[in-house]
Amino acid sequence: MKALALNCTLKRSPEVSNTGALLEKVCRLYEDLNVETEVVRVIDHPVRFGVTSDEGEGDGWPQILTKIKACDILVVGTPIWFGVRGSVAQMVIERLDGTYLEADPETGRFPLYGKVAAVVVTGNEDGAHDAAATTLFNLSHLGCTIPPNADCYWVGDAGPGPSYIEAGGAEHLYTNKTARYLVHNTVFFARLLAANPIPTNLKRLIEEAKSVSR
Amino acid sequence: MKALALNCTLKRSPEVSNTGALLEKVCRLYEDLNVETEVVRVIDHPVRFGVTSDEGEGDGWPQILTKIKACDILVVGTPIWFGVRGSVAQMVIERLDGTYLEADPETGRFPLYGKVAAVVVTGNEDGAHDAAATTLFNLSHLGCTIPPNADCYWVGDAGPGPSYIEAGGAEHLYTNKTARYLVHNTVFFARLLAANPIPTNLKRLIEEAKSVSR
Amino acid sequence: MKALALNCTLKRSPEVSNTGALLEKVCRLYEDLNVETEVVRVIDHPVRFGVTSDEGEGDGWPQILTKIKACDILVVGTPIWFGVRGSVAQMVIERLDGTYLEADPETGRFPLYGKVAAVVVTGNEDGAHDAAATTLFNLSHLGCTIPPNADCYWVGDAGPGPSYIEAGGAEHLYTNKTARYLVHNTVFFARLLAANPIPTNLKRLIEEAKSVSR
Amino acid sequence: MKALALNCTLKRSPEVSNTGALLEKVCRLYEDLNVETEVVRVIDHPVRFGVTSDEGEGDGWPQILTKIKACDILVVGTPIWFGVRGSVAQMVIERLDGTYLEADPETGRFPLYGKVAAVVVTGNEDGAHDAAATTLFNLSHLGCTIPPNADCYWVGDAGPGPSYIEAGGAEHLYTNKTARYLVHNTVFFARLLAANPIPTNLKRLIEEAKSVSR
Repeated sequence: MKALALNCTLKRSPEVSNTGALLEKVCRLYEDLNVETEVVRVIDHPVRFGVTSDEGEGDGWPQILTKIKACDILVVGTPIWFGVRGSVAQMVIERLDGTYLEADPETGRFPLYGKVAAVVVTGNEDGAHDAAATTLFNLSHLGCTIPPNADCYWVGDAGPGPSYIEAGGAEHLYTNKTARYLVHNTVFFARLLAANPIPTNLKRLIEEAKSVSR
Repeated sequence: MKALALNCTLKRSPEVSNTGALLEKVCRLYEDLNVETEVVRVIDHPVRFGVTSDEGEGDGWPQILTKIKACDILVVGTPIWFGVRGSVAQMVIERLDGTYLEADPETGRFPLYGKVAAVVVTGNEDGAHDAAATTLFNLSHLGCTIPPNADCYWVGDAGPGPSYIEAGGAEHLYTNKTARYLVHNTVFFARLLAANPIPTNLKRLIEEAKSVSR
Repeated sequence: MKALALNCTLKRSPEVSNTGALLEKVCRLYEDLNVETEVVRVIDHPVRFGVTSDEGEGDGWPQILTKIKACDILVVGTPIWFGVRGSVAQMVIERLDGTYLEADPETGRFPLYGKVAAVVVTGNEDGAHDAAATTLFNLSHLGCTIPPNADCYWVGDAGPGPSYIEAGGAEHLYTNKTARYLVHNTVFFARLLAANPIPTNLKRLIEEAKSVSR
Repeated sequence: MKALALNCTLKRSPEVSNTGALLEKVCRLYEDLNVETEVVRVIDHPVRFGVTSDEGEGDGWPQILTKIKACDILVVGTPIWFGVRGSVAQMVIERLDGTYLEADPETGRFPLYGKVAAVVVTGNEDGAHDAAATTLFNLSHLGCTIPPNADCYWVGDAGPGPSYIEAGGAEHLYTNKTARYLVHNTVFFARLLAANPIPTNLKRLIEEAKSVSR
């Protein structure tokens, strides 16, 4: 069982990433449950803007997409900027649009069907609900299952202020509690879906829908 | 197996509800899969504003909450107003805040844990993503599981215009297709969770989190 | 010059409202600038769900709408519930939909044209950006002008916690600073627009648009 | 008087941009009112991810920022992807974060104070309200004034479908009407603010706030 964490920070390595710090904590919790983990810091790769799975020579996305297709649990980690998820997270979701075109020819299911998704958000203040809701909803459209309490975030109080690491977010009870909820629930669902794959045949349902539509 | 649909239209019976029309269609699809259905038009009941499970004498919420606790699949249907979910849907979600206080004393799980959620949205234009994302995210916080493609909506093009019924939304392929995705996936997950209840002990995880927090 | 503050708390009088406390502070700042203020706690009035300016006998909205039409500055105060504005604020915006039908017959301008709007948000955590952005955008559609820094909010850090009053939000620098920005900028614009009314003739522009549209 | 339109499409030149087509229409309307216009397609420039005004050698942002500082009206044009504004628009807003650090030493006002903002949104469906609300709110925080009806969008009905150009959006009455509202109102406010600059001294207000805060 494998959990892949995409760190969508705006900062390139080796700069310190607050979102990365919280993702690392989540990864330790996965490992306690014998789930293998990998963190990919997206901005360190030459990912191009676009909405296909391969934007041509030099595009760093195809390699990341291969990892996404191979994981059981996909965790998108994003900072908040101006109250919403950051541009790198938005770019990642846009690139996943390409997977709609890679549906299974028999079942119509997209490549992310059967995966379990979660989000991790950090910001110095306000915006975690919006960032999490948008991202989980998008991932559910792409085929992922969203367990209860599949989000974990840290934000400070109103206005500018210290971020997760500097503010001692590592000791924030709510964040530590929800990190555990997230990990335990995603692992339960990933195991459940591994043993009981989603059988819905989207292709057949499209045909049925066509018969009653214009 | 039972699916409960909450119609959060702003219109009282017997006024015609567009959201109600799409919910009825979804219910017919549930019945094809031998799932019992019930639609509750919330505004026909004297539900009070508040954030507890019982706001006192005359409050119509407790009766609805009893039905919610008894269902396997919870479908929240809402119109779009000013780009977001309507006020009745918002009120319903606020009332569900009270369920956090009714957690199981042994496991810490909230009453909605184990239920599967979906949303149905209609509007004469724009706002379905926001209404669906916010609502599904809130329901996942409350304990519901969100399957892939758990939303179904109809909206017209930019600006004012006819609503679902008048516009012939009943024959809109995208809406009919996603209605089927929604129904089949929620039924699959409801059966799966009935046979395999979520075992996560939130109470134990809180204790664990406390040991590493301030 | 008059500023009208709508307190969209879910709590009826005489319960203490955190949003009300921050609105009172904003009102004191308006009075320092010789602007008359009035606070209306919406939930104390029998406002009905709906999207017209008068939902019939017993509806408390028409009286509030009269005050809205008479003010120069409209401040919508709302709590955050589940990451977004509360249901009473949503209901208020929905009722303002009725004003679109009361456009001036010569100019096509809606009753809120010429007014200046601002928002005040409180919550124990996260959601102020979403609540403010949605509300200010809706008000701009209805005809209001949004000055720079027309929002003021207080939220605590991630997860449940004390609200504005209990947490000592009255001494929070960011909130106190932005309250002043909000008040000074809305007063400047209200005076500017009183002396220089918006001349745009929407009716003429609709005719022009019709000539190039289907 | 100058209006600067930032086209935040994901497509590089010479690919056809639907958002660009609607922005061009808006520019023609500005020119009818003797306002000079310029469109910058952001993705054609090597803009880096980040939150400062200059991310170092090779960064294409400083040149765009110079144009932004020189304009009177700033129009952000964005496509919708997954229900929200695209990643390039998000990146542009993030880069504007750097302007907070360039406040006037005497007045504390940021470089965008005094400018008037508007948004133009296109998508094949749903998401315009969210994209517009978020973007206008962010711009108001950065110092821009938002006139009534400062947004113009085109979206098709529910689900995938043709985009603005292909769908004949150029003849859509609602879009053509709101394009005119947007242009006339932004020009009125830009002229008003040119003659009556916002006098608010943020620095003095911060000092005042400090005296009553922790």
